[in-house]
Amino acid sequence: MISGKLNELPAREAAVKLARREIGCEALARACLERIAAREPGVKAWTHIDPDQVIAQAKALDAGPVRGILHGLPAGVKDVIDTCDMPTAYGSPIYEGHRPAADAACVGMARAAGALIMGKTVSTEFATSHPGKTANPHNPRHTPGGSSSGSAAAVADRMLPLALGTQTGGSTIRPASFCGVVGFKPSFGLVNRAGVKPVAESLDTIGLFARSVADVALLFAGVTGCPEVAEIAEVPAPRVGIWRGAKWPEALPETVSAVEDAAARVARAGARVSEVEVPGEFAELAKAHHEIEYFEMARGFAYEFEHHREKLSEKFRSRIEHGRHCTLATYCESLALADQCRKRLAALFSDYDVLLTASAPGEAPEGLANTGNSVFNRNWTLLQVPCINLPGFAGPRGLPVGVQLVGRFREDPRLLACAEWAFRKLP
Amino acid sequence: MISGKLNELPAREAAVKLARREIGCEALARACLERIAAREPGVKAWTHIDPDQVIAQAKALDAGPVRGILHGLPAGVKDVIDTCDMPTAYGSPIYEGHRPAADAACVGMARAAGALIMGKTVSTEFATSHPGKTANPHNPRHTPGGSSSGSAAAVADRMLPLALGTQTGGSTIRPASFCGVVGFKPSFGLVNRAGVKPVAESLDTIGLFARSVADVALLFAGVTGCPEVAEIAEVPAPRVGIWRGAKWPEALPETVSAVEDAAARVARAGARVSEVEVPGEFAELAKAHHEIEYFEMARGFAYEFEHHREKLSEKFRSRIEHGRHCTLATYCESLALADQCRKRLAALFSDYDVLLTASAPGEAPEGLANTGNSVFNRNWTLLQVPCINLPGFAGPRGLPVGVQLVGRFREDPRLLACAEWAFRKLP
Repeated sequence: MISGKLNELPAREAAVKLARREIGCEALARACLERIAAREPGVKAWTHIDPDQVIAQAKALDAGPVRGILHGLPAGVKDVIDTCDMPTAYGSPIYEGHRPAADAACVGMARAAGALIMGKTVSTEFATSHPGKTANPHNPRHTPGGSSSGSAAAVADRMLPLALGTQTGGSTIRPASFCGVVGFKPSFGLVNRAGVKPVAESLDTIGLFARSVADVALLFAGVTGCPEVAEIAEVPAPRVGIWRGAKWPEALPETVSAVEDAAARVARAGARVSEVEVPGEFAELAKAHHEIEYFEMARGFAYEFEHHREKLSEKFRSRIEHGRHCTLATYCESLALADQCRKRLAALFSDYDVLLTASAPGEAPEGLANTGNSVFNRNWTLLQVPCINLPGFAGPRGLPVGVQLVGRFREDPRLLACAEWAFRKLP
Repeated sequence: MISGKLNELPAREAAVKLARREIGCEALARACLERIAAREPGVKAWTHIDPDQVIAQAKALDAGPVRGILHGLPAGVKDVIDTCDMPTAYGSPIYEGHRPAADAACVGMARAAGALIMGKTVSTEFATSHPGKTANPHNPRHTPGGSSSGSAAAVADRMLPLALGTQTGGSTIRPASFCGVVGFKPSFGLVNRAGVKPVAESLDTIGLFARSVADVALLFAGVTGCPEVAEIAEVPAPRVGIWRGAKWPEALPETVSAVEDAAARVARAGARVSEVEVPGEFAELAKAHHEIEYFEMARGFAYEFEHHREKLSEKFRSRIEHGRHCTLATYCESLALADQCRKRLAALFSDYDVLLTASAPGEAPEGLANTGNSVFNRNWTLLQVPCINLPGFAGPRGLPVGVQLVGRFREDPRLLACAEWAFRKLP
């Protein structure tokens, strides 16, 4: 019975008990494995999970000293992130059975902080669009979102408390919204990407999943190797800007009402809430994002395109072909527009502590053939600012709907503090 | 006899002859192999060179269509850059015999443009300080510089016309200066880094080696997949700013006189030359560079530090230990200083087309235990601007001394055009 509940423990609470040796890493790991055994046939969150390997790691952690702030906490790792002891196929048949020589930086840091790497979670093809097998744990006929499909679904389904993903377009915030968990895309560059299969190096960002803001902050501290950022500051009611922007008409009613309800709730709790006047140039960012992504994909996947073209999805191939025809000048213009909008955004932030906007157009769409639309995520990824999905709302079919908070560039601890404040005010 | 000279052909000239089938890829490759066979025992530029593999590639290129602008041109690849068909040990015993699953993006793009990948060139330990075996081809008792030691030495020694390296501190410009070749560090991000072992992802930049500006521009066009940048525009005499900066006292007499001689020569040819007033904050960049590099190394090499600590050099380990103790706030402050100086530099550039400065303190120091000082390179790497070493001068022992031109961020074709203009005015 105890074991059956341990997998539901918040990561922070588990971390305290593990560090005090009140519970064992093995007991926690077994509870997670039980949940996985029961639920995986429907959810299909994993590409690799080996109970013996998990238990061996847990026993080693139990036998040794407390390693760090993640000691004994089970964490899932998206299949585009290298692990030295588990296959890593980058969501592509080209790399079936591939065994990396080393752990990615974020995995190595998580392990150095004591994390127990449970296994590899399903990614779409190279963390882009072509979906994997994962279903939404709330309703298996609906997509979990992507590309970090397995990480979001596994955390949502209480298979484990923490997971690592990535975001190049909307691959962390959107699946977090669809699955009803906290998804955090830190500022560009703050979580080291060594050992993560690149999609587009100007955009790729490590994403983190947990079931609370406090837990995602703990994971952030672990993977950055900066334990001081695990502490979430208490902040006064923040100044909140509601950001609609050019794509707002694509928000479905459940998303519009989630954002407006969230705004009303934080306003009642004392936040100063106002609408942001979005500068016109931001409407061009979506196109710039595509140009940059495709240009970089065309270079980054040169080997795969030359040697394994037939194993790439048609959509993936067509993006590479698009990118191959982009000139260096056009690519640089897109990068320059992003630089310019970053400056404008930094200036706008003098009036706000956080921005409140949509995480996704609506609840998870039906069907597993498409992981949904990243329209409310791409620009923030390109702008490099930290973003977090806060769950708490629901759509017409009862599936989760989240809202997104956006913070200042490289002020991630402050965004987390504001998000923690807001999280307690949401349903 | 013909074969014996082909290895000395400028890349552009060879490319024209190869594309017209006036010379064969195989003949050119054999000429390079002959040179390597004769000189490698002294120079030690290579970690992997397999004549059969080279000839097989050459025959395949000769048998097929002209693939692109690098068709048949032999290129060396630094050992920190992945190749799918050659061992890649990242300059470290940890990875002895390692075989990557794929080509790095720059290798894949070079191959797609027709380049013949000759082999892997010596790198220092993970492209940092601990030296490899390579000697300076001008005098084997002197360092070739590093970390791209083998690439610089092989091109200088006419073993082949083109080579790929990297620069995180001064790993392209410095060895180019010490070996007497053109070394080009493009703007940060313009040459895709997928498949290059990361040292510090905010700093790592692909570097290119050739024996002329025109040839390095051709290679740049090949690895970016942007053939249009192979064309070097004719420019009027540029406005040249002489940049001394806080570290100028570390320039040895041969470097001071090379920079001053270069300034006098371009001034005589019509360039408007003036001294730049270097803002005081730039003096802090060297410290910021170290903080950023060590912070990122500590994360990026988490796996190696945990599992193979004894195979890391003492200096490498101590950098990781330094980086582990840096807080996220300190790291972000260093990044913010760099952002601020980038803005200042962009404003300064309104008065200049290029900056003229030192490439290295002086000619290559004696001894192979140390690859020299990157004091005149680190800041430019951090500032992300394109830099090029132009050879042409000499030190007291007759070893090469180069000067460095620095261009505006992401205006690499313009820097190359100004460099081509200046290159013709130097001795």
